[in-house]
Amino acid sequence: MTHKNSKSVIVVDAMGGDFSPLNEVLGADLVSQERDDIDIILVGDKNKISDVMLKHKITWPEDKIVHADEVITMHDNPTSAIKSKQNSSLVVGAKLVREKIADGLISAGNTGAMLAVSTLVIGRVKGVGRPTIGVPLPTADGGVCNLFDAGASVDCKPQHLLEYAIMGSIFAREIFGIKNPKVGLLSVGEEESKGNELTLLSHKLLKETKLNFIGNIEGRDILKGTCDVAICDGFVGNVILKFAESMITLLKGRLGLYANESIFKKIKIGLMRGTLKKVLGDLDYQKYGGVPLLGINGVSIIGHGSSSPLAIKNMIIRAREIHAKDLAYKIEESLKEYAEQSKN
Amino acid sequence: MTHKNSKSVIVVDAMGGDFSPLNEVLGADLVSQERDDIDIILVGDKNKISDVMLKHKITWPEDKIVHADEVITMHDNPTSAIKSKQNSSLVVGAKLVREKIADGLISAGNTGAMLAVSTLVIGRVKGVGRPTIGVPLPTADGGVCNLFDAGASVDCKPQHLLEYAIMGSIFAREIFGIKNPKVGLLSVGEEESKGNELTLLSHKLLKETKLNFIGNIEGRDILKGTCDVAICDGFVGNVILKFAESMITLLKGRLGLYANESIFKKIKIGLMRGTLKKVLGDLDYQKYGGVPLLGINGVSIIGHGSSSPLAIKNMIIRAREIHAKDLAYKIEESLKEYAEQSKN
Repeated sequence: MTHKNSKSVIVVDAMGGDFSPLNEVLGADLVSQERDDIDIILVGDKNKISDVMLKHKITWPEDKIVHADEVITMHDNPTSAIKSKQNSSLVVGAKLVREKIADGLISAGNTGAMLAVSTLVIGRVKGVGRPTIGVPLPTADGGVCNLFDAGASVDCKPQHLLEYAIMGSIFAREIFGIKNPKVGLLSVGEEESKGNELTLLSHKLLKETKLNFIGNIEGRDILKGTCDVAICDGFVGNVILKFAESMITLLKGRLGLYANESIFKKIKIGLMRGTLKKVLGDLDYQKYGGVPLLGINGVSIIGHGSSSPLAIKNMIIRAREIHAKDLAYKIEESLKEYAEQSKN
Repeated sequence: MTHKNSKSVIVVDAMGGDFSPLNEVLGADLVSQERDDIDIILVGDKNKISDVMLKHKITWPEDKIVHADEVITMHDNPTSAIKSKQNSSLVVGAKLVREKIADGLISAGNTGAMLAVSTLVIGRVKGVGRPTIGVPLPTADGGVCNLFDAGASVDCKPQHLLEYAIMGSIFAREIFGIKNPKVGLLSVGEEESKGNELTLLSHKLLKETKLNFIGNIEGRDILKGTCDVAICDGFVGNVILKFAESMITLLKGRLGLYANESIFKKIKIGLMRGTLKKVLGDLDYQKYGGVPLLGINGVSIIGHGSSSPLAIKNMIIRAREIHAKDLAYKIEESLKEYAEQSKN
């Protein structure tokens, strides 16, 4: 497996996003101009992909475009679509990863379908009960807190939260370069005795690990930067994530209402907008890149439907990083170690 | 019960907050100067209360101070403290409500103890399985979304979420004057099929009611203002609430980092601070008043430990409003009606 450190083959689902295949092709082209450690395979409607390339004067090797004549849309039911649309770009792309022709898959399409295809077609890492989506949230000190699970599984058992902690810790260490990532369990109070059934039991499991587990954290600790990895079930994670996105909506709305009170206020707010955008830009994580699905036997990065070419580029590069660091292997080894420990 | 509409007797736990009894006494005094529809009974250490009154030249009727020589602190275990500290200001105050000497209780003390004392000493409204804490969050359009449950019960059953919806709806109608409050169920997707076990079952129950149930909402809908009442279990509600509080921490932290980059940026940020404070001030709800606990046979308002005299005043006035509108009675009637419907 030495190739993993020298080069990665990343499949781009060219038909997933709201602006497909345009943004996918442009994003892939950006990467190919800059990086020689990444080979990209575009999967999708060959005619449409070629049209974009012709229009934007992009040359691309014929064998790095794989035709797929179906598309899983945002409205498709994930699980049934991956069965009924075997010729979709997403399923064809996932099969390339399963067959080890490629190392990773990125898609700005249907999130549920990407989850399903990654789990069912590419397959889980040995020992992983539930793969998990991780999302980096900005912290007040200029850093990030990685939230696991951000929506892959809405009903979890303590064992799943333990797996999230292990995977999240490896992710923070390998990708964010944090030596001994602090792991916090999201609950309703700092004391071990505070929480719901799930967190009370999970706390007991996490305490027994060699992870740098700092105990329970509260909602306010995520953005404060109290820990590097925050653990919760996917229901809570999804709600928080979407709530965080809407902070910008609130800020914009309230600033707008204030601006409408007078001309003077309108000017004042106008002058503030640029600065606020710079300061809070990274809150809108989805526009700037995708989120990884960990616990998959290969790399899987899920992007927002409205991903820009830059976002697509960032997703491809993140996929390369995860593959270069061999996260799937490290997760498998780590879980094996924990399983052996808990036997003793 | 005609007195309910003319006058309310509100008990103030004078020993609860971080600045007690100072802020409690000053807050009570503010109310007594402005309102003749509220009688206030201060419960706590008579000497300490008198000292504050002497110092601030406040005259107060002797019979409107009830002595209690114990205090439940922030570090006390709620359930055991209300048993072992029967002479605490909180327990003595709650008994005044239970015995119908007073109509409501406010406290800026230990939240868990206030929950326990309200439920166990004052008692639940007939038909209520779980009382619930409601918190109004600001919305982008200048309104509010009331979040129920914001932390009273961390493990809930569908029936509890139904109760929250009924109580929340009455609260939004009676206190915020919204005619037919829109009720949303917080989940991970708008479709009825999206959610965890709890929300999938709760959705079915809510659909059958006469409430203005708009279906599932997502995390981002709270601050957007999609609905007037957002329903979730107390674990999710507590996490969101604390996360929302920390948005200001994040903003301050990031603006500070930006300001440190140059003198010019420092000046720019300095000019922005005042405006942002005005625009986002009401996000920090806790400083400006307490939150109601609904489903109690009397009024119960829980405040932040650091409550200012103004916050204490607002809590007393909110208690009066809830009593004047006879919320406990309306909740009981509404739950009775739903119970009869579901029998048929």
